[in-house]
Amino acid sequence: MAITSPEAPWVPIARRKQGHRNACIPPQWRIPSAHLPKDPPRFADGLQSALDVPSKVLSKEEIKITEDYTVATFLEAISRRRFSAETAIDAFCHRAAVAHQLTNCLTEPLFKQAAERARFLDRYLDEHGTTLGPLHGLPVSVKDTFDIKGVDSSTGLAALCFKPAEKNAPLVDLLLSLGAVIVAKTNVPQTLSSLDSINNVFGRTMNPVNRLCTAGGSSGGEGVMVAMKGSLVGFGTDLGGSVRIPAMANGVYSFKPSNSRLPYGGQAVLVTEGMTRLGVQPVSGPLARSIDDINLIMKELVPRAGLWGEDCVFGEWNDAQGRLQGAGPNGEIVIGVLRCDGNCTILPPVDQILSEVTSSLKKQPNIKVVEVSTPTAWTQSQSVMDNLISIDGGVLMGKLLESTQEPLVPWMQSRFKTSEPCQLTEVARLQARRTELEYEMLQIWSEVDRYGRRTRKLDAIICPVAPHPVPEIDRYNTLGYTNVFVMFDYPAGTIPIRDVVEQDLRLGQPLGGESLSISDAGCRELWDERTVNRKVYLGTSLSIQVVVPRLEDEKLGRIMTLIDRVVKGHTTGPKLPE
Amino acid sequence: MAITSPEAPWVPIARRKQGHRNACIPPQWRIPSAHLPKDPPRFADGLQSALDVPSKVLSKEEIKITEDYTVATFLEAISRRRFSAETAIDAFCHRAAVAHQLTNCLTEPLFKQAAERARFLDRYLDEHGTTLGPLHGLPVSVKDTFDIKGVDSSTGLAALCFKPAEKNAPLVDLLLSLGAVIVAKTNVPQTLSSLDSINNVFGRTMNPVNRLCTAGGSSGGEGVMVAMKGSLVGFGTDLGGSVRIPAMANGVYSFKPSNSRLPYGGQAVLVTEGMTRLGVQPVSGPLARSIDDINLIMKELVPRAGLWGEDCVFGEWNDAQGRLQGAGPNGEIVIGVLRCDGNCTILPPVDQILSEVTSSLKKQPNIKVVEVSTPTAWTQSQSVMDNLISIDGGVLMGKLLESTQEPLVPWMQSRFKTSEPCQLTEVARLQARRTELEYEMLQIWSEVDRYGRRTRKLDAIICPVAPHPVPEIDRYNTLGYTNVFVMFDYPAGTIPIRDVVEQDLRLGQPLGGESLSISDAGCRELWDERTVNRKVYLGTSLSIQVVVPRLEDEKLGRIMTLIDRVVKGHTTGPKLPE
Repeated sequence: MAITSPEAPWVPIARRKQGHRNACIPPQWRIPSAHLPKDPPRFADGLQSALDVPSKVLSKEEIKITEDYTVATFLEAISRRRFSAETAIDAFCHRAAVAHQLTNCLTEPLFKQAAERARFLDRYLDEHGTTLGPLHGLPVSVKDTFDIKGVDSSTGLAALCFKPAEKNAPLVDLLLSLGAVIVAKTNVPQTLSSLDSINNVFGRTMNPVNRLCTAGGSSGGEGVMVAMKGSLVGFGTDLGGSVRIPAMANGVYSFKPSNSRLPYGGQAVLVTEGMTRLGVQPVSGPLARSIDDINLIMKELVPRAGLWGEDCVFGEWNDAQGRLQGAGPNGEIVIGVLRCDGNCTILPPVDQILSEVTSSLKKQPNIKVVEVSTPTAWTQSQSVMDNLISIDGGVLMGKLLESTQEPLVPWMQSRFKTSEPCQLTEVARLQARRTELEYEMLQIWSEVDRYGRRTRKLDAIICPVAPHPVPEIDRYNTLGYTNVFVMFDYPAGTIPIRDVVEQDLRLGQPLGGESLSISDAGCRELWDERTVNRKVYLGTSLSIQVVVPRLEDEKLGRIMTLIDRVVKGHTTGPKLPE
Repeated sequence: MAITSPEAPWVPIARRKQGHRNACIPPQWRIPSAHLPKDPPRFADGLQSALDVPSKVLSKEEIKITEDYTVATFLEAISRRRFSAETAIDAFCHRAAVAHQLTNCLTEPLFKQAAERARFLDRYLDEHGTTLGPLHGLPVSVKDTFDIKGVDSSTGLAALCFKPAEKNAPLVDLLLSLGAVIVAKTNVPQTLSSLDSINNVFGRTMNPVNRLCTAGGSSGGEGVMVAMKGSLVGFGTDLGGSVRIPAMANGVYSFKPSNSRLPYGGQAVLVTEGMTRLGVQPVSGPLARSIDDINLIMKELVPRAGLWGEDCVFGEWNDAQGRLQGAGPNGEIVIGVLRCDGNCTILPPVDQILSEVTSSLKKQPNIKVVEVSTPTAWTQSQSVMDNLISIDGGVLMGKLLESTQEPLVPWMQSRFKTSEPCQLTEVARLQARRTELEYEMLQIWSEVDRYGRRTRKLDAIICPVAPHPVPEIDRYNTLGYTNVFVMFDYPAGTIPIRDVVEQDLRLGQPLGGESLSISDAGCRELWDERTVNRKVYLGTSLSIQVVVPRLEDEKLGRIMTLIDRVVKGHTTGPKLPE
């Protein structure tokens, strides 16, 4: 990487890009400096939560529109003309602008285009007496990687600024065809391969719950936008955990589907085209405020995805009606609990939250819970996955950075290296190993009798999103609990369970056990009172992950709903060990 | 390739292997030489159909058991103890032995193991009062490529003889777990990449309808076994058309599923392991005597496949009940007719059969038929597919052949070459191009309105399996009508419509039009009276292919059933042009 002078070519590009972004925020939406957080965030300044600021600067109607509706009731309100699309979209854009000023979550505010589209939708409803489609007027945001015609997909790289996309990504087209309105694109990490959404062009996106903690990545801006209620649904992409981790970091729900459920095409080109088909395919997935909102959006998108994405099938997504038939002897839903990936210790509050969820689930007559010991295949998958996602040697990314002499952000400096692309036979060897691991993983789902007959044993797994709580900025290091489910193509979603409370901080004093691996050392430091002030976690969200076998996405939606209902009805806080 | 001496290392291996195979045919099942066909087949000797020979050498009961049952009625008869599994399997093994002596279709006769298993199944039924599983006693055959513990998967390569598999392929395990009995493994082409099932170890499998024509490949032995009624269901694999082409050649039904419907693992290793994940994934698929038989077997296998194959999902396969809801304005099933791939001329009898089918379908009130012009993406896919299936450069196959100094069979001599494996970036380029073509192909299934909303336009496509009728031995050259549907991962099945009759031979005298490509020249020679005696086609089967989008396998089963019922009720023979 070339040494960067103060005016290396990327600098004026970034400056100009930031100017354009600022110009998209109307003056009347600027928030008083009294409401702005102090930078840089310091522990001594307290939590500095941004979550309650919008209610101080938005009108009563704007607050109502942006806070009081689920996706279902919002869509109904629009279709029944309780408010116009223009009014609603204006409220969401205002809120998004506020969210952005507090957290730096947007890359491309599309407020003007959104307002224009809202007016078009209102005219359509007037003229036709019906909505354009089932998502008529729905305010959505998308990760910066999704192409929108006429808008950059820069992903915060100077080399890709001022190069607007020539057409929409298929998912964008699909959303628009159903009547959705895209209010903004959102921020991502440089190279997309870190878990903190920071880059040279747009800067760092801050966690609205606690500015000292990470907002997550790579769909970090989405996590923040949804948590700040700047949109009703956001769309990210996930290869290592990039929709599930920001959901965890910001306390919202997310759903990483199997491949072929939502179109992935039309993304910013950061690796040699076609390369993901040789390694591991990332997927698109929604983030939202509730599992009901996610189910509703999936119900509209999934059955139509086959018309839009060459990577999609004509799937079904029925309304979750009737009792869910599970794998248990009397049709009970059987949920396995996987506590550790074998590479990184699960830290006490995360273990605690799993126990609380398990305890709630066990009280249900139609749910059976079983502890599952760590499959060796899962532990071993880490290195295969790590290798498979770097087969192209970062060649294109290296060139993009170099072309404007753009430096690596601090976290990437020790982690990003370019090399020659792998040999084909080496990639084949990795894929063969992946196949073996996938085959071994079948064992967790099924049991076999003495005649060699197999039956389904588990309906779903619950496990951590990460072995640690939401860490401080630039301390997120562990992808083993999320990226394997992309390699195995298992659908997986995040459910926020509750916030960290004082009691949690007293768990594991001192933290026992042995370090499992080098990366575990970094993980354990996040709970070691010599290396962290545990109080930093107060108020951040504790989440679980729910996982099912490939293409059982609809079932995942239903099981997440079930778990969410059970847990939210029963959980009252952690019980400390005697 | 090394020059082959009369006793190159492969020769004694092949001799010994053939000896072992012969020893598996009990003396009492040897058929009188009067019934054996003359070799080599000559035009002057007439058709020499082998189809009616079994009825001359089997007992009345054996004929009844092997001819009179569908899969459903056979399974019912066994479960109701109308005959024992031992009796039934003995009848099928006897018939398979006869079929083999007439056509050379088997590689591994497993009659002894099958008899033993049948006795076990009978005991199980006695002891438990219920069947072991839903396929209890079902006689199936599998392509030589499927691993069976203790049995070679040589695929006719000397280098792989006497190296028995250490475990069963997942599909084999799945079949056995449901109670099926594997009666034999069947012959394939050398390297699996030609369409005539011939190799140095096992020799050539002959077409039972007409020994002058090809039996097809690469699941050629399967096509013959099913046509000769040596098993009730056969399993092949398909990358270029390898279950659909032998079905066409032998006048039976076949079904190439999407990826993830049936386990593909546990195949003979002929390319570097893991390589198919980088190129195009082949699939396993059944061949059977009727579409009902195929639907029944898929209904039992598909929902369980996720327990057995790491490449499979937990799919549904419901009984085909109720009206099929189609894409037409009133729910009609809309079927597109695709006559030409743009690379090879469709020859008159194949065009004729499509017109007959179309005409029958058009008379149905619930079916709409539309002619579809050749998508450019389909035409262009050929070269991408050709490149993607040879990315490994045939390195492993070259080594296998060389290790025993095995020569190429004549048809392969000008076609098999080894080279270095492709560069990873070149394979990425091919996959990127494939993605573009897949995206373009979406257009044939959907239509778009002025607001950019898309709706499904077609439910299925019918098209030729090949542009020509079943050709003479070693004249099959054209894969464009089959292999693209593996590249696009569209499920596709073969329906035999009727045999070639005298009237068909008078179509296209002379054959008009221009040659579309180099490979088309070879195709057109198959109907050019200067290069073929059209009478060779008499009695061979004319088939169509039915194709649907990815993962709509269950729908394909239902649409194939619909088309089969309509066509078999209406078609009376070709109408000649005035």
